[in-house]
Formats: sequence, structure tokens, C-alpha cells
Amino acid sequence: MAESMKGLHRTHRCTQVTSSNIGEEVTVMGWVQKSRNKGGIIFVDLRDRSGMIQIIFEAADVKAEGFAKAEKLRSEFVIAVVGKVEARSGAVNENLLTGDIEIRAKEIRILSEAQTPPFPIEENSKTKEELRLKYRYLDLRRPDLQENIILRSKAVNITRTFLAEEGFLEIETPILQKSTPEGARDYLVPSRVHPGSFYALPQSPQLFKQLLMCSGFDRYFQIAKCFRDEDLRADRQPEFTQIDMELSFVDVDDVLDVNERLLKKLFDETIGIDVSLPIQRMTWQEAMNRYGSDKPDTRFGMELKDVSETVKDCGFGVFTGALENGGSVRGINAKGQGAMPRKKIDALVAFAKDFGAKGLAYLSIGEDGSYKSSFSKFMTEEELEALVTAMDGEKGDLLLFAADVNKVVYDVLGNLRLEIARSLELIDKTKYNFLWVTEFPLFEWSQEQNRLVAMHHPFTMPIEEDLELLDTNPAAARAKAYDIVLNGTEIGGGSIRIYQDDVQEKMFELLGFTKEESYERFGFLLNAFKYGVPPHAGLAYGLDRLIMLMAKEDSIRDVIAFPKVKDASCLMSNAPDVVDKKQLEELDIALVSKTKE
Amino acid sequence: MAESMKGLHRTHRCTQVTSSNIGEEVTVMGWVQKSRNKGGIIFVDLRDRSGMIQIIFEAADVKAEGFAKAEKLRSEFVIAVVGKVEARSGAVNENLLTGDIEIRAKEIRILSEAQTPPFPIEENSKTKEELRLKYRYLDLRRPDLQENIILRSKAVNITRTFLAEEGFLEIETPILQKSTPEGARDYLVPSRVHPGSFYALPQSPQLFKQLLMCSGFDRYFQIAKCFRDEDLRADRQPEFTQIDMELSFVDVDDVLDVNERLLKKLFDETIGIDVSLPIQRMTWQEAMNRYGSDKPDTRFGMELKDVSETVKDCGFGVFTGALENGGSVRGINAKGQGAMPRKKIDALVAFAKDFGAKGLAYLSIGEDGSYKSSFSKFMTEEELEALVTAMDGEKGDLLLFAADVNKVVYDVLGNLRLEIARSLELIDKTKYNFLWVTEFPLFEWSQEQNRLVAMHHPFTMPIEEDLELLDTNPAAARAKAYDIVLNGTEIGGGSIRIYQDDVQEKMFELLGFTKEESYERFGFLLNAFKYGVPPHAGLAYGLDRLIMLMAKEDSIRDVIAFPKVKDASCLMSNAPDVVDKKQLEELDIALVSKTKE
Repeated sequence: MAESMKGLHRTHRCTQVTSSNIGEEVTVMGWVQKSRNKGGIIFVDLRDRSGMIQIIFEAADVKAEGFAKAEKLRSEFVIAVVGKVEARSGAVNENLLTGDIEIRAKEIRILSEAQTPPFPIEENSKTKEELRLKYRYLDLRRPDLQENIILRSKAVNITRTFLAEEGFLEIETPILQKSTPEGARDYLVPSRVHPGSFYALPQSPQLFKQLLMCSGFDRYFQIAKCFRDEDLRADRQPEFTQIDMELSFVDVDDVLDVNERLLKKLFDETIGIDVSLPIQRMTWQEAMNRYGSDKPDTRFGMELKDVSETVKDCGFGVFTGALENGGSVRGINAKGQGAMPRKKIDALVAFAKDFGAKGLAYLSIGEDGSYKSSFSKFMTEEELEALVTAMDGEKGDLLLFAADVNKVVYDVLGNLRLEIARSLELIDKTKYNFLWVTEFPLFEWSQEQNRLVAMHHPFTMPIEEDLELLDTNPAAARAKAYDIVLNGTEIGGGSIRIYQDDVQEKMFELLGFTKEESYERFGFLLNAFKYGVPPHAGLAYGLDRLIMLMAKEDSIRDVIAFPKVKDASCLMSNAPDVVDKKQLEELDIALVSKTKE
Repeated sequence: MAESMKGLHRTHRCTQVTSSNIGEEVTVMGWVQKSRNKGGIIFVDLRDRSGMIQIIFEAADVKAEGFAKAEKLRSEFVIAVVGKVEARSGAVNENLLTGDIEIRAKEIRILSEAQTPPFPIEENSKTKEELRLKYRYLDLRRPDLQENIILRSKAVNITRTFLAEEGFLEIETPILQKSTPEGARDYLVPSRVHPGSFYALPQSPQLFKQLLMCSGFDRYFQIAKCFRDEDLRADRQPEFTQIDMELSFVDVDDVLDVNERLLKKLFDETIGIDVSLPIQRMTWQEAMNRYGSDKPDTRFGMELKDVSETVKDCGFGVFTGALENGGSVRGINAKGQGAMPRKKIDALVAFAKDFGAKGLAYLSIGEDGSYKSSFSKFMTEEELEALVTAMDGEKGDLLLFAADVNKVVYDVLGNLRLEIARSLELIDKTKYNFLWVTEFPLFEWSQEQNRLVAMHHPFTMPIEEDLELLDTNPAAARAKAYDIVLNGTEIGGGSIRIYQDDVQEKMFELLGFTKEESYERFGFLLNAFKYGVPPHAGLAYGLDRLIMLMAKEDSIRDVIAFPKVKDASCLMSNAPDVVDKKQLEELDIALVSKTKE
């Protein structure tokens, strides 16, 4: 039975009713959170998007018919209630915004009955995620998820307003694009009109936003859906959202400036966090040297120290061997962890090995100043002393060392640093530490493809001083690329783009593309560049991750209304699914495994 | 050769420089519109997104090196200029915002050279669209297209801000969905992880936005990309954009009210049109009776008149025959067209036949009051007189009649009315006439499927008084559905949704679905409805068409940055295109025609 709301008009959302409305008649509508009959009075907690309010039903007020309806109420029934606002008769509920008032019902309509939901609608649900995702429409009723989605909507709105005020135009780029083999795996869409041809869903609007700069739109942005058909990790979705922007006639400082102001406004107006400007900047090299990471979490110290010089003549072959192979020896100082039990240290050694270390050298300093170390027998007293001094080692400290090629050393110590901070709870979770990482390497070596690949993308501009390196030592060239890092997570990145023919040609050459290949891949952009291209630059944020950090959630699934799970399926709608034979016939495609049968 | 902009910082866009800047030094950057050397002085029109400004180069100001650069300039070169603002030395150019000033260049850098573009970058281009679409990035430099894209960005921004202020949350729904066979043809996306399964791109966020109401989000909106794999007509695109919204705890008036205020704000703040509220409302039946259309253009009269009663006993078999078959006889009065030559009338008859008329009866009234008519010999003087009176016929008028089943009569006269108004230029193009069309039929008969189909969609609520008709005469039931019409074009539409189990079940029954079939199609929504669903309603605008009307363009391609053409391909990027064999293998699909070879 579902009653009509005819003749009723909601006057307030639940928590819009306050003590200032006492004595007034209001109409509220929402879901029954819970209902209980206490000595002939029925108490109902009514819930809507804004929160909850208590309704009381007494037979004298709502008549027998109304009271009978109130007696039927169960969780998740949808009702409309007309009643008078009163000061709460019982004890004030401090946990509720509306805890000091209640509504004495005069009229009730049951707009929709409800079966018992498969799990309770409550904050911090203990129900396992799989079941919640199957009933996502119920899961989304939980106040914590509602808050996340509301936060996301607010954040996006602030972003758009800010960018519009800064002269950015919001321009839609196509979802049905051409497949370009560079980058991750494309999602394909078979064309019915052109049998044998396919569209691809965009991995990002990169080429189109650069075209828009060629067209003279000067400043573009888009909250853009992007797609990557990759095997999903915890933090990935097949479709995800970017705050995407591109600007003409700018250099690095201009891009960073407008984005710093965006972040300041965004964090202030959503979660009340004051981002102090300018945001710290650090070159990629400094970030690697100090934190072993290109996205350092600067909420705590425990920085890496390069002790190569100190140990270069010592007797410990692991150290000197690494140096002889062109590597380095670096350490971190886990302050006050000198008494860490052997078992725990062994776990750290195992952790380090997961990141490619052959081993992990350690030295703990007792409260009495004595050393316990995995390598003391290989070094003299003076050598050990020098090492401890170099590491600012004090009584009660634990020193951990990695010796290998730089890449491994950075990776091991960077991750070890995080692991120790996490397990010892060294991180102040109230902090929001932003950091620009700049001057990324232009290239990185792809073991797989046995060639240089673009670290950011092939249109990234080298920094002016390094243009000569393209001829002599391209691997050492730095890029005008920048990432914005928040609490150790990369939330966005971008670069100044190449707008000069000769530089672009050299880039492609270094990436091992023939002229034909580069035109095959990026033809329409390269053609556009022939007709007058402005210097331009851009940046894109991963919106899902950004909101996740703002909401202090651990998974981006908690900030996406209808997320997919690891196998890229939707547990609620069962997408993807089989389709009618006729649909495939129209597309001129067949399933290979079926064909084989 | 491309110079760096290092050390320069743009101070103004071209038309931000005004006479108030005279005497100041400014830095502008943009594209050379044209360049001419007049007696040793080089005049350059520099263009950016904002418009144009004149730059003058004299050797004494820019040195020999600078002057040499200025001499090299050709159309579409990208340059940066530093110079002093002066009052224009020559005649003031009234056509330019900056026509009273010019910049005397002190420094010039050529940031990018340009080949001669394949067509001139100018307003109201005469170049054929195919070539312009191939070089869309150049076409988009034309000021008229730039204005359209800027208008679109502005309109979308105003819409978002308004809706956010009205308590709507912007929530993203998935692009990778499950295919539902109802509606138009889906675009499919093969799943790699689940071979043999497919995602579908959404035709609209319909089911998801209703789920969001079930989740209690109360008010949702999204500027949503939608996809339909249909054969393209003039103003269709395979991907298009909707302003999509859904509201809980509302009835028709609430939806119309918030949308009227949206439209008022939108038209005022973009193109300065004052929409007077409330917007006129008309039932579907009245719209058909008066205009022969469910999207009437009310900018002119020439309304349909039902003369069935007048002619029911006349001697003209075409009229009486139509009435005997349950049809009607209706006419329009083309005022003052009594002297229309026979050839033109014949063309109108042919036009009417295209819309299903077997013929078109006409009667012209001479300036002397005499009648010339295709049917006068079948009717008496009195019958003719009565007919002319019924049509308010006066000297010099042309009366046109259709007699058939209502559907054909409406269609013929509705279109004839538009055709005559267009060819006689009766339409005041400065007008923006809005109209709500309400109370649409709930069902229409599908000849093809030989069953009732939902006119709006299967979740549309019947109007209360007609609920009984579902049992007795469902084809006569009216829906709580509404369209918003602007100048004879439907720009949006929506409905109140069914939220009652029993009504929904009856709907599916009438649509000929078994319970199993309805669950197969809409299972997750029907399941969601079991757990408490609020009364809700929604509306969606076709954004592309809306902007097209605001911009007074004839094609939606002129308001989309990167549109596709009739065969759903992109002439610029060549999407769709063939893909690597490896990509198809990974998806476990094969091309049928290739397989056959």
C-alpha cells in the first residue's frame, strides 16, 4: 500500500527544523530509521539526507487511523508527517542536531512500505563490502557514504566556480574516440556503421585539450570521465574522473599559482582546512634523495641520508660493492627504536626484500651507547662511529641501511620509511601536507620495451638548460613536469607542452618512433601544430583519490556512487553481461570462444 | 623557428586593452589575423579568444631585428608583443571593440610559425563543412564558433550554480553499464576480464538517477553524456549531453517551478532574454488540437480548427468518409494567401502527402469574395459559407483542410502550418516562446510491435483520475509527463515516476512484459523499490539543442567542440578506425566478415 502525497508539501528537511520552529506546524518526509512503542506512545526517528528528527505519535493527536499506521511502521518505510514542533519531552539527545526538539504528529501518510533491508542502515557498517555493493542503493543511505557523495558534489562545484572565475572554459571532449596504442589498454566500442572499425573510450582528454589550445580557447577545463582497461588494483576503477585543465601562454609558475589558489579555496570551503601558500616545492631529485619517493609524505621526518662517502673505504663488502657498481649506500634513522626486537627487525628485512633489496643492514644503539648490528664485524670501531655520526644516531636509535643501485635504494628506504611510520603511528592524521614535485626526468628506461619511454608523455617540454642533453645524454634531461602530492599520495600532475617542431621531432626520435609512426599515433595533433600553436601547459587531478583523501577514506569506492569491483564488474547491476545475438550481428562481431565451440 | 616566451608575461587579452590603458606598456599574445606593410609601417591585427587589436611595428621602435620579424608575419603565426597603448593613429574602426586604440610594438617574439591554413579563419565561413570538420581545430578559431563554445560553457556554469543553490547534488553515474534492450540501440563495450560479456554506454542515467532517489539523495543533477547507436539525422549525434535531474517528494508543480526559474536565470544571464514566468502550460490534447503538434511553435498563429461538426452532413465524400471512419476534418487559415498561385498550392499538397495525407482540400477567397476551391462542386453554397465562417475566412484568405484519422490530420496540418510560416517568413525570430506541454498520453500504439508502448518510459505515473482507465481503456490514460518546448523545439522533458508496486506491475502487464521479463530488464531498480521508495520525478534537457537555439544556429554541430558527422565518424581524428589484431584477441572477439573470408 502506497499513499499519495497529494495535498502535502514538504516544508523542511529533517534537520532544518530547529528549536526556533517550536510551536509551528511543519511537514517532513523521509525514511523511518527506527520506531518503538513505549507505553502507548510511538517514537519514530525519521531520516533524510540532512539527518534525523524524532517524531512522536499519540492516538489523541493522529486519530485511530493515524495511530494504526504509526503502529505499522518499520525501518525504511517512507512516510510524510505533518505535526507541531515541540521541545523534546524526554532527555535531550546530544548526538542529534535536532536532539532538543521533536515533532508531535497530527497526520501521517505511508508513502512506501519496505521489506527488512539485508543489512542495517547505519554509520561505520560492519557488513561486508560485497553485500553492500550488491545493494548499493541501500548502502548509499548510510550517513557516512551520503556525506562523501555530498562532499564530492560540493568539491566539484567549488572547483568549477573557481575555474570559471579564472577564465577557464568548460569544454566537452568526445567519449567516442580513436584508439591510440600508446599508454594503457583502451576500452573499445565496435562501430555498427563501419563494420570492423572501433571507437576507443578516452584514457584522458590529452590530445583534445591540446587541440583546444591550438584553437585559441586559452583556458580549458573539464571534469572528465576517463577509462583504462587495466587489471584493477585496490585504488583503481575502470572508469575514473579527472579535473582536467590546460592553459595557453603560460609557464610553470602560472600553472602552479592558479592551482594553489584552487586547492586553498577547495580545502577551506569543503573541510575547513587552511592550505598555507605557497605550497612547498621540491625537485624530483631532492624528493628521491630525502624521501626515496617521488610523492613523499612530509607529515613526518625519518629522511634518507646518503652515507656513501662515509662508508666508501670501509670493510663491509655489501656497502663498498654497491658503490663500485655505481650505486649508493643510504640509511634512515628510526628514532627511539633501538630496542626493536629481532623478530620485528626481521620483518622489516623481509619487507625491504619485497621492494628489491638483497638485504637490509641495521645498527641499533642501546641506551648504554653500545651498538648491535648486522655488519659490525666487518667494520672498525671508527668506521661504525663515523656512520652513526653521519646518521645523527643517538642512544636508543635504530639505523637501517640499503646498499644497491640508486633506484633500489630509493624504493626500499622510501617504502621502509612509510612502513615504520605507519606501524609506529608516527603520522599526524590531522595534517594536510601539500607538496609540488618538479623537474621530473624527461625519460625513464623501459626494461620491457628496451627503449626510453616518456615519463609523463611524449609532449612534455624539457627544461631549457637541458635541451642540449637531448643530443648528449637524454636520460639525464629533466622535464617541465610537476606533480601535486598530498600526504604522500599523488593527487595530480601535468607539464608544460612542447610547441616547437624541432624539439617534438627530437623527442619522437629519442622515443624510437619513425616520422610515420608518430603521425599514425598523434597525426591530428601534429597537423594542428603546423598552423600556429601557442605555448601551453596543463594539469589533471584524480578526482576520486582527491575526494577520498578529503573524506579520510581508505578506498575510492567510498567516494564513487556506483563503483565497480576488482574484476571491473558492478555487483549491483551485473554489468558487464551477455547481450543478444542480434546485437553482435549488427556489429559484425563474434565471440571467438563461441566460434571455436 | 619558435621563440620562447621566457621573461614575458601576458598582461591583457586583446580586447581587455582599452583606451583607459593609453600610455601604458602591455604584453599581448595571440594569432596574426592579418598583416600588411603600408609605407614602411607594418600593421598587424592580433586575435585571441577575446577578439582583436591592432599592433603597429616601426623599425625605430622594435629595432631592425624586431622589424625583420614583423616583416615575416603571416596569418596564424602566434606572437607575443610588448608595446605601448596609443590612441589609434588612423581612422577609428567602429567594427572593433579596440577600434579606437592600437599598440605600438617595442618587442616581438614569434612563438610559432604557421603554414597557410586550408581556409580563411573568418566569421560566417563559406568553406564547406566537410573541410572545416577535417580541420576542426582551425574551424574552432573562427569567432562565431568560439562564441558558441563560450556560450555553452557559460550556460552550463550558470545551470550548475543554480541547481547547487537549489539543493541539487551533482552525482556521477557510470558510463560502463549493463545493456537493456528497451529503447534505442546501445553502444557496446566488450569486456576483457569477462570474455563474452559486454558493457553498454548509457542512453540516459534514468535507472541510476531513480536509484539515487531510493538512496535518499533527494535532489540529483548531472550534465551527463548519453549515447545512442542510431542512424543519425540532421540534428543527432552518437554522443550527446543532457542536463539531467531528479527530485524526491515532489509533484508536477514543484518540478516545473524550479525549472522555470532555471530557464529564466539561464536566458537572462547568457543572452539577455527575459523569460516571463509562469511559462504557459498546455495539455497535450490542446496542443494537438490547436497546433497539430506536441511541440507547438507559438510564435505565430494559424491555429488548427476542427470543422467536423460543420461538414458532417455535407456532400463531399472525402470529408464525410473521414468522419465515418472515426477521423476528423480540420483546417488552417493562411491569412492573406488567397491569391497563392496554383503551382504553389500544388507544392503544399505534395508536402501534405509526404506527411501521410491522401490529399489536401483548399478553398481560396478572392478579394471580391468569390471562392475557388478543390471541392466546391461537392458542396452547396450554404455548406461552403458555413465552412468559411467556421474558419473565420475573410477576403484574401486561403483555407486548407485535411480529413483523415486524427493522427494524420494533426501531422499534416501541424507541419503544413510550419511550412507556410517558414516560407512566408511569418516567424518573429527575436522571440523566445516557451511552453510546457503536459498530460501526455501514457501509451502509444506501436504498429511495429503490435502492442502498447510507453510514450515517455515505463516508470511514468498516470494522472490520478485516469488510474481506473488502466483497467478499462489504457490507451486513453494520461501521464504525469511534461515537455518543455522552445520555439517549436522540444528542449526537455520528464515525468513523475511510479513509486507504487501495484501501479508498476499493471504498467508492465499493459506493456506486455511478464514478471520475469520486467525483472530481466529493470531488476535492480525493481528490487530497490522494495526497500522504501520516495515519490520522485525528473526532467532532462538536451543540452546541445538548447545551446543551438540560444546561439541561433541551425545545427548542433555548431555548438559541439568536436562533433561527428552523419555516419558517426569524426572527420578530424578518423574515429572509428581499425585496431590491432592483438586488441581484439585480448577481448576474445573476431570480425565476422573477416572470419568469413
